[in-house]
Amino acid sequence: MLVHTDELQRLDGGVTAPKGFRAAGIHCGVKPAKKDLALVVSDELASAAALFTTNKVKAAPVVVSQEKIQSGVAQAIIVNSGNANACTGTQGWADAREMAAVTAKALGIAEEFVLVASTGVIGTPLPMPAIRQGIPQLAKTLSRAAAEAAEAILTTDAFPKTAAVQVEVNGTRVTVGGMTKGAGMIHPQMATTLSFLTTDAAIAASYLRQALRTAINQSYNCISVDGDTSTNDSAFLLANGFAENPPITEEGEAFDRFQAALNLVTRELAKMIVRDGEGATKLVTVTVQGARTNSDARAAVATISTSPLVKTALAGADPNWGRVMAALGRSGADVKEDRVAISIGGVPVAHGGLVVPANLEAAAEAMRAPEFEVLIDLRLGEGQSTGWTCDFNEAYVKLNSKYTT
Amino acid sequence: MLVHTDELQRLDGGVTAPKGFRAAGIHCGVKPAKKDLALVVSDELASAAALFTTNKVKAAPVVVSQEKIQSGVAQAIIVNSGNANACTGTQGWADAREMAAVTAKALGIAEEFVLVASTGVIGTPLPMPAIRQGIPQLAKTLSRAAAEAAEAILTTDAFPKTAAVQVEVNGTRVTVGGMTKGAGMIHPQMATTLSFLTTDAAIAASYLRQALRTAINQSYNCISVDGDTSTNDSAFLLANGFAENPPITEEGEAFDRFQAALNLVTRELAKMIVRDGEGATKLVTVTVQGARTNSDARAAVATISTSPLVKTALAGADPNWGRVMAALGRSGADVKEDRVAISIGGVPVAHGGLVVPANLEAAAEAMRAPEFEVLIDLRLGEGQSTGWTCDFNEAYVKLNSKYTT
Repeated sequence: MLVHTDELQRLDGGVTAPKGFRAAGIHCGVKPAKKDLALVVSDELASAAALFTTNKVKAAPVVVSQEKIQSGVAQAIIVNSGNANACTGTQGWADAREMAAVTAKALGIAEEFVLVASTGVIGTPLPMPAIRQGIPQLAKTLSRAAAEAAEAILTTDAFPKTAAVQVEVNGTRVTVGGMTKGAGMIHPQMATTLSFLTTDAAIAASYLRQALRTAINQSYNCISVDGDTSTNDSAFLLANGFAENPPITEEGEAFDRFQAALNLVTRELAKMIVRDGEGATKLVTVTVQGARTNSDARAAVATISTSPLVKTALAGADPNWGRVMAALGRSGADVKEDRVAISIGGVPVAHGGLVVPANLEAAAEAMRAPEFEVLIDLRLGEGQSTGWTCDFNEAYVKLNSKYTT
Repeated sequence: MLVHTDELQRLDGGVTAPKGFRAAGIHCGVKPAKKDLALVVSDELASAAALFTTNKVKAAPVVVSQEKIQSGVAQAIIVNSGNANACTGTQGWADAREMAAVTAKALGIAEEFVLVASTGVIGTPLPMPAIRQGIPQLAKTLSRAAAEAAEAILTTDAFPKTAAVQVEVNGTRVTVGGMTKGAGMIHPQMATTLSFLTTDAAIAASYLRQALRTAINQSYNCISVDGDTSTNDSAFLLANGFAENPPITEEGEAFDRFQAALNLVTRELAKMIVRDGEGATKLVTVTVQGARTNSDARAAVATISTSPLVKTALAGADPNWGRVMAALGRSGADVKEDRVAISIGGVPVAHGGLVVPANLEAAAEAMRAPEFEVLIDLRLGEGQSTGWTCDFNEAYVKLNSKYTT
């Protein structure tokens, strides 16, 4: 079932937009001055699903949360920024577990219901005294406001990233909320992405997992800032049932409506990450259509979105379609050169695999906008995919090459 | 058989170091002022082997030369720089064929024995009047000097790249020579690599092909400037037998000695490309040892060598081993985090997957050298691989984002 966009109502707010969730964010001392500790709590035990980095080098909080999520239920997520607790050995695992234990004690709930996430510098042990002392204070400031938590999970992000959407499910208003963080560094480090999603929908655990996977595949898995997959990437989704909708326990209209709301929240959050990519000045939508298969289209979008030569051309507003052709050619997707059509910002720059010289100036003009689309038609089939990328400019390199140790 | 380095004698010169080869390079008008047309000719018909880009979008000269090389023989290679003759449709194919035909006529040889290569801007037709007029003049300047040809194949390379090596094969001195070009742009375009190799060895065509593949795999296929595979990448090897060695027609010592000389020439040329990478200031050797398999080691080297986060850390002389761990983890290679040891410039920065804090300052110092090694021991098996990369700094972005159309 196709859910129309106008049935999805955007709200202000983030993880506390759904009923029955509270959040908090404070500075405890992992970073020199900025907020660095966040907490999201459901008023009651919630269904829980999560997805984690595919990187084989996994941060301690990823390993610990992967274990805890097996139960399919959780009530709280404790997060620190400023230190990734990655490549920290057995001490790192103990620290991640202790973060959960201290949080559980402060909240008066069982330790196994507390998930953990971290983001920041790799390879340095967590400053546990600051975190131990911070968590009880953090728990005291829990409220229905989401702004402090959204701020406390950031690293060098330029702005906090929250989104919330309401949709009617079987006659009941259900809300999905979320917050995320983008490419950043403390001492210049990994571009780490974390996503915290909440909903007051009542939904069976297996459908919650399925919905999360679908939502992440069409949002976070379609963006690129620099092609480097983090050791800490995690997406969490808690569903506490406070909306009191008839529980979603099968596929069908109710599930589709919930999925549409979750898709919109995750897409909005993912696009905010690209817009706030390190050094980025442009949000560029890359769409490949007419591919032999969807997976061909996806491969082409991914290669174009991560090509340094394409991304530097985006920075320079250079309608350098030859770089797009070269990226297409190495993407693994089926390509017949003489069928390819490319338009940039709505202006056709190549047709039948050949340049449209008269349009290059107009395309360059279109590329000076802060947001535009690169649309590629392979004219081989029905496969389609869309992703989002940003330009690659000197500021990215400056941010990431500064000497720090 | 292991051939010792001291049995390989380096010579000055390039494609004309082997007997029976002549070369030339002139300016004909593809570029505004610099040399842009090169020719390499064997005095007699030679055995020929070639390898071409794996990009599905192939430049016209690649398509034409792929066809011609099927015969296993060739006598000349005509090359222009300044225009890639890629994404130029049927006109491009006709132009590439005509370049070969005009060259054949000027040399008085058959058209099918002339190979073609181009490098430069993608998507613009070749300026054929300039090329048609240039080729006969070019043929008149053929000589035993290799410098002009080496200059005429360059785009924005900072220096010409030639190498030559002599080795004794069955009591006869055999010479291998070569020239190549690196990452560059005219109007900022693809980083295109071309390699022209010559030898006076007598060697059967099938062994020539095998030797070329082996040599390219351990040289050109182990380097990265920006991870973008060109539409024009080509490596050519002509063997004219002028050394009058007993022909190499089987595996064994003679073949191994020839292979060793070819390996050394291609490695030297490939390393020159990295040293001259766009904006590069450092040549960094990346070695992974102790991998479960050689292909694991190769995957790890490739991921580390192309990671923007690793390469910006190299630029900043930042011993940011966490980025190396993250790249390892997403490379597909088997990794046990708690076994990994990493040293930079001979200084151990991580051991058992954990930082060696006392050494970070010394490692940073070592990274300020123009050449150093990043050595990773996975301690899982016997797999090993080495590659070369350069730092990724603001000059690369500046070069590639300048507005041009």
